[in-house]
Amino acid sequence: MHAADRIRIVLVGTQHPGNIGSAARAMKTMGLHRLVLVAPERFPHADAVAMAAGAGDVLDAAPRVSHLAEAVADCRLVLGCTARSRRIALDELLPGDAASRAVATAAVSADTQVALVFGRERTGLDNDELQLCHAAVTIPADPGYSSLNLAAAVQVLCYELRMAMLGLRALAPAAAAAPAPDGDVPASHAELEGFFAQLGDTLDAIDFHKGRAPASAMRKLRRIFLRASLDDRDVRLLRGVLADAQRMARLAGERGG
Amino acid sequence: MHAADRIRIVLVGTQHPGNIGSAARAMKTMGLHRLVLVAPERFPHADAVAMAAGAGDVLDAAPRVSHLAEAVADCRLVLGCTARSRRIALDELLPGDAASRAVATAAVSADTQVALVFGRERTGLDNDELQLCHAAVTIPADPGYSSLNLAAAVQVLCYELRMAMLGLRALAPAAAAAPAPDGDVPASHAELEGFFAQLGDTLDAIDFHKGRAPASAMRKLRRIFLRASLDDRDVRLLRGVLADAQRMARLAGERGG
Repeated sequence: MHAADRIRIVLVGTQHPGNIGSAARAMKTMGLHRLVLVAPERFPHADAVAMAAGAGDVLDAAPRVSHLAEAVADCRLVLGCTARSRRIALDELLPGDAASRAVATAAVSADTQVALVFGRERTGLDNDELQLCHAAVTIPADPGYSSLNLAAAVQVLCYELRMAMLGLRALAPAAAAAPAPDGDVPASHAELEGFFAQLGDTLDAIDFHKGRAPASAMRKLRRIFLRASLDDRDVRLLRGVLADAQRMARLAGERGG
Repeated sequence: MHAADRIRIVLVGTQHPGNIGSAARAMKTMGLHRLVLVAPERFPHADAVAMAAGAGDVLDAAPRVSHLAEAVADCRLVLGCTARSRRIALDELLPGDAASRAVATAAVSADTQVALVFGRERTGLDNDELQLCHAAVTIPADPGYSSLNLAAAVQVLCYELRMAMLGLRALAPAAAAAPAPDGDVPASHAELEGFFAQLGDTLDAIDFHKGRAPASAMRKLRRIFLRASLDDRDVRLLRGVLADAQRMARLAGERGG
């Protein structure tokens, strides 16, 4: 089951170390072992070890990094678990669809790493962190009482990942088709961020914003392109278009200057 | 959602009161509220209340009985959750199939009560208890490390019950999610073609093709944007970007000419 080696669970800013241990246990029962901790408040900690029960090896192997961007730098698919729809309008997936997509992406090659990201117990993921995600995953909790424990949410997602890895869930055609539309490798996080940076520069160069704050337009454009599941060739093509628009803007500036 | 009123979660011989609280929380997040406790080792208990978080009402309403037979006396369907296949050969269901069956049974009438039964943390359900069950439910854990926490198992089953109650397992996810990502109207054929025409003009204006036949690049770009399921606001935003690139190209041309 090689997909399990390419799917990591990322916990961001976890406040209670016991939850890190419980999450490790939840992962291991479902055959997953790659845990990454982003700025945990207290770790290592005896509570984490106690709650991990027999999953101490998952804890011991977990790298710690400072920012989510580091944790997902080499990932082709980043899914952020959120309690409900947020200000940032990402596509929202159900856990089963998210798992199908994650496993299908991880199955493409050893190079197609996938991350499922879980935020802080109280406040979840912040907007900057959600910007790094290709889509959101939402467990359809009762709106009247939606406070799943962090480890419980990890358990549900890992259970769906296992069902998908075992082929026990019929693949939704859309989920199966999404990651690599024509058999190409999905663009990596770094490639996408390079493209978005150049897109931002190009909007400046062609004076798209005209004094308005650029954040809103960039957010919408990110959403459009993340939804399109770009592969590396798509990114190269789009960056070629941007390069020519930038060249033209430079020319206009030089000739005007 | 009347099925929720006819489905009870039965915990048998629970050893740690904290697990009873966590199970109550897991139930409530998934819209379930009927908990029955069979001979809990320690209950009521402060740990149960602490772990229940906002689900204290579920604890308070939970009847306590001495034997499983009392807890399920009025039930038409009794499903016993087991870690693995046991000596007693019951039908084994996956959690999703168990949930579909439970919800379908509960939907028949007010008289068709259903129980999902969870055994002791260490030893599960004994043979006499399994004899009371119509079928077993098994979460397909990793055989190398199958020790799900009791509350985690309750969470997974209650999640599946909720998916079944919401009818989210039957729906084709693609049909539900794809067309209008944030509730906006998908762009019409005419709007999309207007956008593609302007995209073609812009590529000419910024001299993207440089003598190559434009058909191949346009085909790839169409595919990217069709995949992104654009709504009309997306199209307006993208056409705004194109308009500025065209303006810049015109400026470069005029100043050069």
